[in-house]
Amino acid sequence: MKQSVIKYLLSVRKRLYIIIFETDTRVGRLFDIILLWAILLSVFGVMLESVKEIKQPYGTFLLMAEWAFTILFTIEYLLRLFISRSPGKYAFSFLGIIDLLALLPSYITLFVSGGSYLIVIRSIRLLRVFRILKLGRYLREASVLTDALTASRHKILVFLGAVTTLVLITGTLMYMIEGSGGGFTSIPRSIYWAIVTVTTVGYGDIAPQTIIGQITASILMLMGYAIIAVPTGIVTSEIVNAEKGKIKEENQIICSSCELNAHDPDAKFCKSCGNKLS
Amino acid sequence: MKQSVIKYLLSVRKRLYIIIFETDTRVGRLFDIILLWAILLSVFGVMLESVKEIKQPYGTFLLMAEWAFTILFTIEYLLRLFISRSPGKYAFSFLGIIDLLALLPSYITLFVSGGSYLIVIRSIRLLRVFRILKLGRYLREASVLTDALTASRHKILVFLGAVTTLVLITGTLMYMIEGSGGGFTSIPRSIYWAIVTVTTVGYGDIAPQTIIGQITASILMLMGYAIIAVPTGIVTSEIVNAEKGKIKEENQIICSSCELNAHDPDAKFCKSCGNKLS
Amino acid sequence: MKQSVIKYLLSVRKRLYIIIFETDTRVGRLFDIILLWAILLSVFGVMLESVKEIKQPYGTFLLMAEWAFTILFTIEYLLRLFISRSPGKYAFSFLGIIDLLALLPSYITLFVSGGSYLIVIRSIRLLRVFRILKLGRYLREASVLTDALTASRHKILVFLGAVTTLVLITGTLMYMIEGSGGGFTSIPRSIYWAIVTVTTVGYGDIAPQTIIGQITASILMLMGYAIIAVPTGIVTSEIVNAEKGKIKEENQIICSSCELNAHDPDAKFCKSCGNKLS
Amino acid sequence: MKQSVIKYLLSVRKRLYIIIFETDTRVGRLFDIILLWAILLSVFGVMLESVKEIKQPYGTFLLMAEWAFTILFTIEYLLRLFISRSPGKYAFSFLGIIDLLALLPSYITLFVSGGSYLIVIRSIRLLRVFRILKLGRYLREASVLTDALTASRHKILVFLGAVTTLVLITGTLMYMIEGSGGGFTSIPRSIYWAIVTVTTVGYGDIAPQTIIGQITASILMLMGYAIIAVPTGIVTSEIVNAEKGKIKEENQIICSSCELNAHDPDAKFCKSCGNKLS
Repeated sequence: MKQSVIKYLLSVRKRLYIIIFETDTRVGRLFDIILLWAILLSVFGVMLESVKEIKQPYGTFLLMAEWAFTILFTIEYLLRLFISRSPGKYAFSFLGIIDLLALLPSYITLFVSGGSYLIVIRSIRLLRVFRILKLGRYLREASVLTDALTASRHKILVFLGAVTTLVLITGTLMYMIEGSGGGFTSIPRSIYWAIVTVTTVGYGDIAPQTIIGQITASILMLMGYAIIAVPTGIVTSEIVNAEKGKIKEENQIICSSCELNAHDPDAKFCKSCGNKLS
Repeated sequence: MKQSVIKYLLSVRKRLYIIIFETDTRVGRLFDIILLWAILLSVFGVMLESVKEIKQPYGTFLLMAEWAFTILFTIEYLLRLFISRSPGKYAFSFLGIIDLLALLPSYITLFVSGGSYLIVIRSIRLLRVFRILKLGRYLREASVLTDALTASRHKILVFLGAVTTLVLITGTLMYMIEGSGGGFTSIPRSIYWAIVTVTTVGYGDIAPQTIIGQITASILMLMGYAIIAVPTGIVTSEIVNAEKGKIKEENQIICSSCELNAHDPDAKFCKSCGNKLS
Repeated sequence: MKQSVIKYLLSVRKRLYIIIFETDTRVGRLFDIILLWAILLSVFGVMLESVKEIKQPYGTFLLMAEWAFTILFTIEYLLRLFISRSPGKYAFSFLGIIDLLALLPSYITLFVSGGSYLIVIRSIRLLRVFRILKLGRYLREASVLTDALTASRHKILVFLGAVTTLVLITGTLMYMIEGSGGGFTSIPRSIYWAIVTVTTVGYGDIAPQTIIGQITASILMLMGYAIIAVPTGIVTSEIVNAEKGKIKEENQIICSSCELNAHDPDAKFCKSCGNKLS
Repeated sequence: MKQSVIKYLLSVRKRLYIIIFETDTRVGRLFDIILLWAILLSVFGVMLESVKEIKQPYGTFLLMAEWAFTILFTIEYLLRLFISRSPGKYAFSFLGIIDLLALLPSYITLFVSGGSYLIVIRSIRLLRVFRILKLGRYLREASVLTDALTASRHKILVFLGAVTTLVLITGTLMYMIEGSGGGFTSIPRSIYWAIVTVTTVGYGDIAPQTIIGQITASILMLMGYAIIAVPTGIVTSEIVNAEKGKIKEENQIICSSCELNAHDPDAKFCKSCGNKLS
């Protein structure tokens, strides 16, 4: 009898595995959709709680919702942990740690009492916002974009390196030029200003006051305005290439002799075996 | 005799239909142009009315213009309603409801009197600005742009989803880092700041004050500065493809000898085998 | 003898015509370079005059430079007028009127005296900055850019029309949402804010205060951030096409039979007469 | 014996030359990596020194690190100077002068004492930030970007010239329109505002107050928003061409039978005539 219980539990585990980790079955898809909405709603709840005007009248309702989501996510966390084929790998992955950190504070508040500690512990719950990254796998179309970004990541890093150098030099120069007028009180702060300027954000909390400072800033702005063209050019070039590669793949002139299928649209002979293409 | 009146009315209706809904006849085009200017002028009038310095001296003139346009648009609305082949469809369409809402307030003010109610009712007239969308159909060249945007709408949605996630996470992190200093008083407000920053708008009404906050903001700015390349790349790629597709489509000259089909539009002989093209 | 004087004057006129209107001779080029520097220096002088800190100590020097340039430009203006083959055309062209307006104030100040009138007259001199447009013809490389912009001007106009509509609607909506809080005191002012926001300039002098206003503004910002891709895509597509056209032109496989030279790089037979290409 | 010393010294010089100027040997690479980190750390140290909150408690430590780096860079400078084949060329190059200027202040502070002079001298050390440009040669991937930028530098200069003209004219017009309201106190300042606006930075320290000024500013913003497309188009076009050129260059497989040369890199048979490619 004991054996049949184990067998039953194993079959339950197997079925749960399919529901939680796979999306091909109807129940698996339903589980995913419920989880997706639960994550979105719980993130939305935490956000609303930070608004004083909402927390005061609806505090009790938000607390109840909080506990409902905590229990739901606890069940999900335990299921993932015990049913996964490699529980350790999940537990110590980035999302696994986030999942745990998003749960613990609610439970700790049951045992600990007292103002300031509680606030620190509760604020950890805000890390829950990272769980939104889980939604990423629902998007299949993202692959073209991430492929293009991956292909051009070296060039983008070089570009960011060039921007960083520009910002370090301009920041230091502006600190020398402006003195502490206009908010350029230290080099790191001047570099912060240079980043705000070169990216064309321009808060205006720090702004050059001297003539030479304004001329330097003008040059930085024009450079920032022009060099935005560089990452755009890189990514555009990669996306155009990625689309072309896809077209070739979809083109599907298959060689009847060697079954190669990546032929140019105007090819008359197979480029691999020399066989005539129909 | 009654029959001939009906016949006459039907022929009037038919002629009006051609004037209002078609743009091929001279009178139809004239009707469109007058309507176009009337919409632009009435929108301009409502805008001027909101400026105190203009309303005081020219108030009476604006009121008269208001009534002139109201009567003109009432006639247009009734004509569209009674002449259209499916009046219900027009009446409950977005532009139909806007047309009605743009007319009603002027008539209601005749019967209702008394300060605060009147202001609310009159402000509904501002919705008239949506009527400007009617001008859209006068632009034929817009189709290339809308085609490119339609073709890349999935990728742009994925991109906007990625930006939203980035903004949610950065907003929450900044609320944790900055406390309520510098205006980060709630998570929604912090997210608002993150949107203002990542889109490089940068009002400066909310700005990070702590060192860690400024470092986080700097990273967000550089990311915002670099990821603008993604939608640009997507749309550019689509427009280049759309133009190519158009050229290819217009250009189906196939060589009867070697079956090559990539000929220039002005080609008379096959560039590959020298055969005469038909 | 009189005849020989006329003949001499005509030959002088012809020589001056070559110097002023043509750039192929050495003297003509020298004239152009001197004029170019004179324009730049006179514009620079007018700019410095507007800075109080510079005008007080160096006022006399600036006045002398002013008169030197005025006399130089007067000579140039008269020469252009009397030597040109169609003086009227030049006199009433945009640059001709600017040239005259840039000269008159200096002479008027000799006859008129008295504070406020003088300031108005002198400020007309500032229009001299438009003379900088004359430098445009020295740039040959500008043609690729202006060609691309000319080719895509219809699409860019459609794009600007779409942005204008977006800005009109958002501005009106924000006026309704924000009331007069945060500086949205009239619809034109709200539209000004919408332009500042959608172009990602973001001065911060007007900023939404209400939650709904901030949500609307966030949507506008994200749209502004994404639709920048549209003009970029249009212009990029045109420049890529312009370059391709140039490559074909430079490709220079010339048919020995009909002398056509716009062949594709892989063409073996002339597309116009079917002759074999070498 | 003397000869052998000279011979020994020459061989040391040769070995040092390889270590310092070449990166192919293991020791040469190690030297480069140590130098790279020393530059980054010394720049970081100078930056931290400018922050009052850090200088007070850690001042002594920063001074010690300062001297350690000064001695290290002195050794590097002397080695470069005496081992280089053309010492004069290095000494008077931009980076050579920066290297010297970055060292001198530390030594001068040993002999000179007294407040204000010291500060000026010490601030020269900040030029050390330019040494970061030395890191450039470690990046091989940068060549594609710099190639694209070099190829399009003429067009970018024309573009910057057009932007400069736009900014000069708009700045002058705004000075005439706004008077000294809203901070448009002089033409150079108005031009500074125009640059801040056209590049979409938008600090908000200077903003138009009059209706006409706001309309002019709106037009400038829309132009700035649209013309960003031009440099982007230029650079994108160049990068796409550079990539294509690279592919074509790497790909000179010519069919010996039909002389087609547009084969894929993995092609074994001619796609047009089926002939075997060598």
